[in-house]
Amino acid sequence: MALNVHHLGIAVDDLDTALLVYSDLFGATPEHRDRVEDQGVEAASLRVGESRIELLEPLAPDTPVGRFIAKRGPGMHHVAFQVADVAVELERLKAHGVQLIDEVPRPGLFGLQVAFVHPEATGGVLAEFVADDRT
Amino acid sequence: MALNVHHLGIAVDDLDTALLVYSDLFGATPEHRDRVEDQGVEAASLRVGESRIELLEPLAPDTPVGRFIAKRGPGMHHVAFQVADVAVELERLKAHGVQLIDEVPRPGLFGLQVAFVHPEATGGVLAEFVADDRT
Repeated sequence: MALNVHHLGIAVDDLDTALLVYSDLFGATPEHRDRVEDQGVEAASLRVGESRIELLEPLAPDTPVGRFIAKRGPGMHHVAFQVADVAVELERLKAHGVQLIDEVPRPGLFGLQVAFVHPEATGGVLAEFVADDRT
Repeated sequence: MALNVHHLGIAVDDLDTALLVYSDLFGATPEHRDRVEDQGVEAASLRVGESRIELLEPLAPDTPVGRFIAKRGPGMHHVAFQVADVAVELERLKAHGVQLIDEVPRPGLFGLQVAFVHPEATGGVLAEFVADDRT
């Protein structure tokens, strides 16, 4: 079961601009920044109190986040739920016949272990499980 | 400045189904439920640890959430930032020329004072300020 909302993922056209917007408008504090070629994103996380926002700029149009922006425009992309063990949660959902994107945990941004649940299972919300011992 | 992410707002086709999904898949715990005719929604909030999710079912197609679903399908609708004083935040953003939906605070769901920032100001994210002394 989820312990908390770990972060809200937001697809952006320009990471530097978005970092300024979330800092200026909402007082968010930049935390990490990383460029992950094999996931096709440059990403930054920000803290808002105990909460966290993850900004995702696609490295090219033909990437998952690039295709998302082409189809829907920039905006909210996914919600990540913090769990103690991603593999345990995947097995629990599989046992209930829930449609998954990732059948096993995989490395995500910032060195974290993650897996995505299919939006069909949640009524249109792309949901992520993430295990993060830092928080 | 925002103290925290207060909740993630999600537009749903059917509130009862969505409540079951978020309880079963992510262990969310129902908190409040309210039908607000003049806002055109039946809404429920759920806790996930310290975080909160707000599910919004439109009462009719010709409502803000009904039009959102007709255009984009069900899914993530807005993110609400908890602030100490909504009016103070609105004045701060107005002074910076930020485009607002609500120029002054108004009553929101569950008896809370809220105001919405225009998605143009945030790169496509509908953002809400909310003052909530309960949390």
